Amino acid sequence: MNNKKIAILGAGPSGLAQLRAFEAARRAGVKNLPEIVCYEKQNAIGGMWNYTWRTGLDKNGEPVHGSMYRYLWSNGPKECLEFADYSFDEHFGQAIPSYPPRAVLRDYIMGRIDQQAISKYIRFECPVRWVTYDDSTNMFTVTVMNHKTGEQETNEFDYVVVATGHFSTPNMPYFKGLENFHGRVLHAHDFRDALEFAGQDLLLIGASFSAEDIGSQCFKYGAKSVTLSYRDQPLGFDWPEGMEERPLLTHVDGNIGYFADGTSKHFDSIVMCTGYLFHFPFLPDELRLKTHNCLYPDNLYKGIFFQNNPQLIYLGMQDQYFTFNMFDVQAWYARDVILGKIPLPEKEQRLVDMHHWLERHEQLDGEHDNIDFQASYIRDLHKMTDYPEFAVEEQGELFKTWLKDKQKGIMTFREESYTSTVTGTVATQLPAPWLDIKGDSLESFMALDFIDVESQD
Amino acid sequence: MNNKKIAILGAGPSGLAQLRAFEAARRAGVKNLPEIVCYEKQNAIGGMWNYTWRTGLDKNGEPVHGSMYRYLWSNGPKECLEFADYSFDEHFGQAIPSYPPRAVLRDYIMGRIDQQAISKYIRFECPVRWVTYDDSTNMFTVTVMNHKTGEQETNEFDYVVVATGHFSTPNMPYFKGLENFHGRVLHAHDFRDALEFAGQDLLLIGASFSAEDIGSQCFKYGAKSVTLSYRDQPLGFDWPEGMEERPLLTHVDGNIGYFADGTSKHFDSIVMCTGYLFHFPFLPDELRLKTHNCLYPDNLYKGIFFQNNPQLIYLGMQDQYFTFNMFDVQAWYARDVILGKIPLPEKEQRLVDMHHWLERHEQLDGEHDNIDFQASYIRDLHKMTDYPEFAVEEQGELFKTWLKDKQKGIMTFREESYTSTVTGTVATQLPAPWLDIKGDSLESFMALDFIDVESQD
Repeated sequence: MNNKKIAILGAGPSGLAQLRAFEAARRAGVKNLPEIVCYEKQNAIGGMWNYTWRTGLDKNGEPVHGSMYRYLWSNGPKECLEFADYSFDEHFGQAIPSYPPRAVLRDYIMGRIDQQAISKYIRFECPVRWVTYDDSTNMFTVTVMNHKTGEQETNEFDYVVVATGHFSTPNMPYFKGLENFHGRVLHAHDFRDALEFAGQDLLLIGASFSAEDIGSQCFKYGAKSVTLSYRDQPLGFDWPEGMEERPLLTHVDGNIGYFADGTSKHFDSIVMCTGYLFHFPFLPDELRLKTHNCLYPDNLYKGIFFQNNPQLIYLGMQDQYFTFNMFDVQAWYARDVILGKIPLPEKEQRLVDMHHWLERHEQLDGEHDNIDFQASYIRDLHKMTDYPEFAVEEQGELFKTWLKDKQKGIMTFREESYTSTVTGTVATQLPAPWLDIKGDSLESFMALDFIDVESQD
Repeated sequence: MNNKKIAILGAGPSGLAQLRAFEAARRAGVKNLPEIVCYEKQNAIGGMWNYTWRTGLDKNGEPVHGSMYRYLWSNGPKECLEFADYSFDEHFGQAIPSYPPRAVLRDYIMGRIDQQAISKYIRFECPVRWVTYDDSTNMFTVTVMNHKTGEQETNEFDYVVVATGHFSTPNMPYFKGLENFHGRVLHAHDFRDALEFAGQDLLLIGASFSAEDIGSQCFKYGAKSVTLSYRDQPLGFDWPEGMEERPLLTHVDGNIGYFADGTSKHFDSIVMCTGYLFHFPFLPDELRLKTHNCLYPDNLYKGIFFQNNPQLIYLGMQDQYFTFNMFDVQAWYARDVILGKIPLPEKEQRLVDMHHWLERHEQLDGEHDNIDFQASYIRDLHKMTDYPEFAVEEQGELFKTWLKDKQKGIMTFREESYTSTVTGTVATQLPAPWLDIKGDSLESFMALDFIDVESQD
């Protein structure tokens, strides 16, 4: 019997989770594993967690994947994304604070990966051009552009795992007058270095994580003023002097922005923190997931199998409280279905299961509900796999504490410490206010004199 | 007999030329014209000549086509691109200066187009996703994403005309240290408003039209200093104080740029004026033109017919002195081949013709040679079509004068006047130095008191 063939599209957290899932099976002695090829647009693994100075299009003329910026620190506690089988203690050999910078988190995530074992599956600088499915052979045909050779490659696969993320293609609204604004207008996706905006009056459109975090970064790194413009509800945090929220921008005239409450203000630059589009330019309509950013996209059985063709698997397409752990559990589940260990029900039964979750999804009311929903979704997958037990519900409770801590102080919540659900270790504290720690490298962070919270009693 | 079907990809100057060519045949009473569909990514005709404030990706998540910036004035004399059948005099009803701003030129180009007649062929917001060719049916299958409906559309065609341009996908080099530069790093493609850089020390990498023009714009609009960094040869113009050329950047460290001659300087922003890639993500290898920017790309018979499949037509893929007129002549020639009025030779004969031109292309030595080469290429096509006679060679001589005038004064050449090869009209002069005229709109330009050169004698 021929082995099954799988294409994994993307080598970020979700794609890597799928590779690790199969690698774990191989190490456990499972025979007749599928042949795997992972196509990655970038020249490195890590997906969104790779920082790039590039914006717009990359060196090969492909849309830049990364939305990360310099000085980005985790905006959620690291204890909420800790792996059961690879603790922060194990990776760093010491307790570290709960909110590390990007480079530190990336180091942790990558530390668990056996790069040698995994990299043999990955074809770098190979963006996918087009995917088709043949009903007569039940196979996908995947064509990629290999920018290293300058030639395209076409291969057939039994399964396609779409792990290309959904925080890379900007949703960029228009406001009247933008074509005559005399400064930079950019999307959060293209934001890179807050120092570019030092001394400026900065306008941010949006009232979600990007606006909150980019606004805080720019305040930290010397913006003259930061104005956040919301459509429906302000973020409502207790902003420091120099930061404020206003209702939605109505238009700009030269460098003056006008708001729905009749006020106006001069701005040097405008950052659209207006979210992302689900964008799969390589998929024909009949294979393409059409959704907005939510906790349970329609047409995905168990949140992963495309209803009209369950040989097509989508990972990580949910809005996310949980991240790496959730991708892992999805990847383990997908692997076990591919290996025949978990049965895939008939279409009608899949629909019933989806509807159960979609109905529950519709009833959600507020962030605590959302967190509990995502935790129970993960638990539902987890119970069917051999993925290491981890404290999903406890991590959910940590998310609720995090929400409270942000309300207490949007500029100080990164100074809080949480307890690991994996090791019981209490995170150390930053030796200074977050606002005063300007470095963001792994080296500068690890050189800080973290304060042991327990020993302070 | 069924009519032939043609897909035109792009409704910029080249695609519009193809539409006009067929529309001209229709008006001339030609029967059994092909059915035409023109797919355009943007929401308007005009291609590169539409200004957009957007950078990176557009509202649909597609790469932004436009590389135009505010305050752009033509960098060549309008007399070199004047249409034989539609003069500047006819359009504006008065003589105007030789170097108008973008909006003025766009108005002229668009003025000739019967938008009602043409727009019925065009499907806006329909980027092409994938094209295939079937050897058994001799038909192309073209799949586009219709962003207006959210659905893809797939149709078959006898001919595909690729008119998507080659100045939209940035060639973006890396220099060591860019990932730690504390300011904006952008490609010329994303440059929009020079006022963003007022008061800044600006570094431009490159020594061609983009560097020369963006550098001049930023100087005009108040940059503190403009440094142009060249790889092989400096542009060598007599730059004003505040502008200078240096050899190639070797690396940056923080905001300091280091150059090959050992010098260094502080910069606030870096603009890569490093050219564009030929990028056809919608074409499989066997249909894809692979070339760099030159006056005679290989594998295009008469510069337009793809050698391995002459039902595939590429317009405007040459480097350009001549522009709109050349696209027109190419489009008229392509039309007449499709209509059977001009025979398409067998593959071997096409090869002989291409080699003749490629050999001549290899011998070119300097700009005058280049201009003459492109003029004779246009003449070679023109003589086979009924495109209105125009003074190709005379316009070529004008290009040579233009080169001299730029050498005389890179900040003043736009104050020169040239004589129309179509009407004999001598262009009027700007009423003030170009450096002092800051407006760039059609209205503000036409409100200037142009000076009649002839009446000054």
